[in-house]
Amino acid sequence: MTTSPEALTADELQDVWPILSRDERAEGFTFLPADDADDFFLSLSTRDQAELLMELREGARRRWVRLLPPDDAADLVQEMEPEDRVAVVDLLDPVTRREVSALLAYEEDEAGGLMSPRFARVRREMTVDEAITYLRRQARRRLETIYYAYVLDAEQRLQGVVSFRELFAAPGDRPIHEVMETELVTVPEHMDQEALSLILAEMDLLALPVLDAQGRMKGIVTIDDVVDVVQEEATEDIQKAGGMEALDAPYFDVGLADMVRKRGVWLVVLFISEMLTATAMAHFQDEIARAVVLATFVPLMISSGGNTGSQASTLVIRAMALGEVRLRDWWRVVRREFATGLALGIILAVIGFVRILVWQMVGHMYGPHYMLVAIVVALSLVGIVLWGTVTGSMLPLVLRRLGLDPANSSAPFVATLVDVTGLVIYFSIARMLLGGTLL
Amino acid sequence: MTTSPEALTADELQDVWPILSRDERAEGFTFLPADDADDFFLSLSTRDQAELLMELREGARRRWVRLLPPDDAADLVQEMEPEDRVAVVDLLDPVTRREVSALLAYEEDEAGGLMSPRFARVRREMTVDEAITYLRRQARRRLETIYYAYVLDAEQRLQGVVSFRELFAAPGDRPIHEVMETELVTVPEHMDQEALSLILAEMDLLALPVLDAQGRMKGIVTIDDVVDVVQEEATEDIQKAGGMEALDAPYFDVGLADMVRKRGVWLVVLFISEMLTATAMAHFQDEIARAVVLATFVPLMISSGGNTGSQASTLVIRAMALGEVRLRDWWRVVRREFATGLALGIILAVIGFVRILVWQMVGHMYGPHYMLVAIVVALSLVGIVLWGTVTGSMLPLVLRRLGLDPANSSAPFVATLVDVTGLVIYFSIARMLLGGTLL
Repeated sequence: MTTSPEALTADELQDVWPILSRDERAEGFTFLPADDADDFFLSLSTRDQAELLMELREGARRRWVRLLPPDDAADLVQEMEPEDRVAVVDLLDPVTRREVSALLAYEEDEAGGLMSPRFARVRREMTVDEAITYLRRQARRRLETIYYAYVLDAEQRLQGVVSFRELFAAPGDRPIHEVMETELVTVPEHMDQEALSLILAEMDLLALPVLDAQGRMKGIVTIDDVVDVVQEEATEDIQKAGGMEALDAPYFDVGLADMVRKRGVWLVVLFISEMLTATAMAHFQDEIARAVVLATFVPLMISSGGNTGSQASTLVIRAMALGEVRLRDWWRVVRREFATGLALGIILAVIGFVRILVWQMVGHMYGPHYMLVAIVVALSLVGIVLWGTVTGSMLPLVLRRLGLDPANSSAPFVATLVDVTGLVIYFSIARMLLGGTLL
Repeated sequence: MTTSPEALTADELQDVWPILSRDERAEGFTFLPADDADDFFLSLSTRDQAELLMELREGARRRWVRLLPPDDAADLVQEMEPEDRVAVVDLLDPVTRREVSALLAYEEDEAGGLMSPRFARVRREMTVDEAITYLRRQARRRLETIYYAYVLDAEQRLQGVVSFRELFAAPGDRPIHEVMETELVTVPEHMDQEALSLILAEMDLLALPVLDAQGRMKGIVTIDDVVDVVQEEATEDIQKAGGMEALDAPYFDVGLADMVRKRGVWLVVLFISEMLTATAMAHFQDEIARAVVLATFVPLMISSGGNTGSQASTLVIRAMALGEVRLRDWWRVVRREFATGLALGIILAVIGFVRILVWQMVGHMYGPHYMLVAIVVALSLVGIVLWGTVTGSMLPLVLRRLGLDPANSSAPFVATLVDVTGLVIYFSIARMLLGGTLL
């Protein structure tokens, strides 16, 4: 690095941001022109905003924290160390402070934790012209986003909703209650964000009203919050599919110790389970000693089971996350996966069979009983692939049934499970067919 | 099924939809009350809409196709068989027909293919009050979504943008050019949808203007389209991570033959590559014959390499998809993964070492040279895990460098690659350390 942070423009600062220390970030940020600094601050991740804020002087901290709408401010407070939280909430103006405190009562990953309390309100007896004038007054004060105006009664219960497009298109003298939609999609305040994102995407809505148990409207969850949620949930699912705990942070932001822990825990569990293969192999030690040729196919056998199992579990986990496959579909899944697994097993068996015959013709590698060896390999492949496919597809459903996250039946986990049973299938078939000849 | 489709309500029809034939779907749909049918049709996936439409009579078909805004109509036409497309486009009213034809010139997965041509326009010299009146007139005619009004000059070039919130909050007599934002984020019409979704999510914008090569504004891509894109791309990445081609359709909608093909192609490739393990094992046949105990650890060795490789590749692929890791970061990734792999390797080595000693104490399984065997296993684990981690993390970067999709370096692919090299590492270390004793 030849440039010092204070000489940087917003674009340059953004480029070097990941490799700067906390003080360097604060220093670079402090030297940005006011206009750029606003945009820069808003474009940072909540985590970076929180870190940066704690490096700034109190006056500056107040200015930046007040730039955030209440839902983002609440997220930011949740990112901070518990001992810093109260001080930051106290920097807010009284109205926002009340809003943020209410939002902090919710979990981060439920509807209440995602919602904004600043939605547009109208009354049912207003005309369209009056409503538009009233909304312009609300916008001047505090209103985060405008897609829908919500029609509330005196008890804050939701009676209807009118989109801005409909409001704009309607004649100015019609009363709101004639324009509003009364078939409403609402969500309860404690609904999980993953369920929420599926509803928003499915319904093609831009915002969903959040109601408390008494039916009072508390806020709106908007689709731009949900895009982040969808990315986040997909990242979690992909990382779990890779056989590790979700990182919950960008790759380079995770410290080495944390990285080793998040990956190591699963690896150790898999390693200890996989030790069963050594036990299984030891069990068939005599067969291996008599026919070493059997041992040479062990990696091929177990990887075939592992690969088909990974495919099936990945497919079913994702289909469940998207709501395409539900628990009650389990029997349809079994039938489909049985047929698919059988077809895949036969394809691999034919290739394996031909491969042994060809190698035998070229190099006479497999001795006089090569045909029997080829048959053992082919039959084992059918059995192992079929077993891998059915196990891989059922495991996510079993986990869901037990109330666990199906994403935990990751590819490596399924592969490990299928490895041990694959060995048993392979050596059992060998024992049956080769007894008296090779064994 | 005891009920016939015509007796169903919209909710019931939705529930049984997946298991109905095409005619049954059309029959059930035709019997819905008009209001429910509208919502029902709009809630269907584009694929289902296209199938349903072809089952209906021409008069009905016209009614439903005209319900769709131009971007959705274009998606629908793209789902149809090429020979049906012209007939469906001809059902549209002339203005929409022209819009849809323009959209059909774009690829489905680029900005032009996602955008809507119906955006809100204002002129820079209008006052805020005039702009609101003008927008109300546009809304009455044709306007799909309202978040931003775009300020265009006579050549349709974009000069600025004003959000509805700002428009509502501004005094009525101020001219638009004083209210509008002139620092614009725009995208070119051929930008890929994945890049687009990252920009929208990062910038927290609700819509992005799409410009052609001459800088003329052609349409807007809205965030609700992007939510679908994000889900779609995540599904593709997850399915590729599971070692298969992306399905491009919901699980139960894929026919058995298609399912076998999409999974079989990769499985066969992996199977044929994995045959190298049989060759490698054959190469070490003498060692195995002399010390069968070595063979018993083969599955444990190769699965450890495979699991660590899967973790590393999954992590890097996802980080690249989210823009957290770029090609030029490769050296930082190598250093991180080297350190992580070393730590993970040592952890597994210690567990493996202790396991052999304990089993030896309990059952005397490993003979007089058990200590040497334990050392071979431990050293091999460090080497294999380190190698798996570095290979797994580098492969996605190498694929990107070659212009290929990093997601193709899936967990099973990495595992297969690491299996063969893992065997070579293991048996080479065994040869070195056990020569003269066990071997």
